[in-house]
Amino acid sequence: MDCWVDGQPADALSLKDRGLAYGDGLFETVAVRDGQPLLLDRHLARLAEGCSRLAIAADPERIRHELSSYALAMGEGVLKLILTRGDGQRGYAPDTTAPGRRILQASPAPSYPAAHAEQGIRLFPCSTRLSHQPLLAGLKHLNRLEQVIARSEWQDGEHAEGLMLDQAGRVIEGVFSNLFLVRDGVLVTADLKRCGVAGVMRAELLAQARGLGIPTQVTDIGLEQLQWADEVFVCNSVYGVWPVRACAALSWPVGPLTRKLQTIARALLDA
Amino acid sequence: MDCWVDGQPADALSLKDRGLAYGDGLFETVAVRDGQPLLLDRHLARLAEGCSRLAIAADPERIRHELSSYALAMGEGVLKLILTRGDGQRGYAPDTTAPGRRILQASPAPSYPAAHAEQGIRLFPCSTRLSHQPLLAGLKHLNRLEQVIARSEWQDGEHAEGLMLDQAGRVIEGVFSNLFLVRDGVLVTADLKRCGVAGVMRAELLAQARGLGIPTQVTDIGLEQLQWADEVFVCNSVYGVWPVRACAALSWPVGPLTRKLQTIARALLDA
Repeated sequence: MDCWVDGQPADALSLKDRGLAYGDGLFETVAVRDGQPLLLDRHLARLAEGCSRLAIAADPERIRHELSSYALAMGEGVLKLILTRGDGQRGYAPDTTAPGRRILQASPAPSYPAAHAEQGIRLFPCSTRLSHQPLLAGLKHLNRLEQVIARSEWQDGEHAEGLMLDQAGRVIEGVFSNLFLVRDGVLVTADLKRCGVAGVMRAELLAQARGLGIPTQVTDIGLEQLQWADEVFVCNSVYGVWPVRACAALSWPVGPLTRKLQTIARALLDA
Repeated sequence: MDCWVDGQPADALSLKDRGLAYGDGLFETVAVRDGQPLLLDRHLARLAEGCSRLAIAADPERIRHELSSYALAMGEGVLKLILTRGDGQRGYAPDTTAPGRRILQASPAPSYPAAHAEQGIRLFPCSTRLSHQPLLAGLKHLNRLEQVIARSEWQDGEHAEGLMLDQAGRVIEGVFSNLFLVRDGVLVTADLKRCGVAGVMRAELLAQARGLGIPTQVTDIGLEQLQWADEVFVCNSVYGVWPVRACAALSWPVGPLTRKLQTIARALLDA
């Protein structure tokens, strides 16, 4: 399917776009089933938070409408929205009244091995550390060189994801996933106030767990907590939940809370 | 003048470019006089360092040739080279054999007030702190949201540049300049091993100072060292050297070493 730029079919971008020049923008990767963009409210909420913090004056209703129309035309697959600040002149100073440029791209749903979800995965222990930048933490912005470098650390098919720590050695997330652990019945995930991407599936699973009365904790996680975890899993809004069986010398069983949340995620994504 | 993409006139970019998707690339901003790209060897050396560290397999001789041809066609102004990893599929994993996509853009030389160079400037004390990422430190890569946010902190014409500290409070650089101070005859600039852009004019002035027997020091700089400095100036490869007269409550005279290096920079840029 054609890309759309600001609502119109297009195959190219202005060379003056600040998304290219500075990574001055945000993105969302949305699963689409039966013409519906899934978890749309959560994607739009994160985008709105990003627009607010980066001072991009995008129109949320227009974006919602456009995503819905594009998803309907796609039918199935993955919809990527890139929202840049639009064209700029020379220099970093942003126009904070610019409404942003909307780029929509469709791709087929990725075909991951079924074993990832069924038997669980092995995480590659990335040596690339996430830097601390509270002004950008949590956002899905276009400055992604840390993820590019981390993802280049392994090429083998043995590792389906990588584990990323921050500069202080805290456990933060996967390269394209968030990470949860379970310890004594408590569902734990990293506090993303310094770095990391606050994933839509992470937010959804936290909310669902709370709704089920499962205790949750969003906190700093040290490597020792990973060692003592009863269960570990990763998640995102495209593949749902993958149990984590191992990372370097550490290993975990696939546990019941992982399976419960995996079933919930699957139901959300098969909607 | 038209932009060039991979050596051909073009006005648009592929929507699959990884420069847009992830800021996966580098740039150089080169002053052009009489058809010559100035400080070209230093620009190309920094670009080569970036290609090596990001694993972009660009051809340095081709880039040199293209920059020279484009500068000749421009005559005067500022040439911006953006080198991205080129098109990508979905996902962060980079093709480390990709030769990169070369984007060349021309703009007129910026017309800064003559007073910036003559009487000196006032720095805005940015509250945006630079994050620590040794894997990217020194490079002029396309992940520039920190500079975008910092540059949005002031709109008045009283401040020609901003002062940026790192997350630990060390004095690093300007938003689009490097910073030097002079203390007891020693020329001091920040060590950029954790963050910052290793500017071409910074490298040139350090080399010129050493050639003149002026002692130089590349080190961590605390705010207290800025308070005790005899002279402070900022530099880049487009405007040369601007003396710094003040930053918040701090003020400095415009000193003799600043003037000496400013004269050297001016000679390089008026070549």
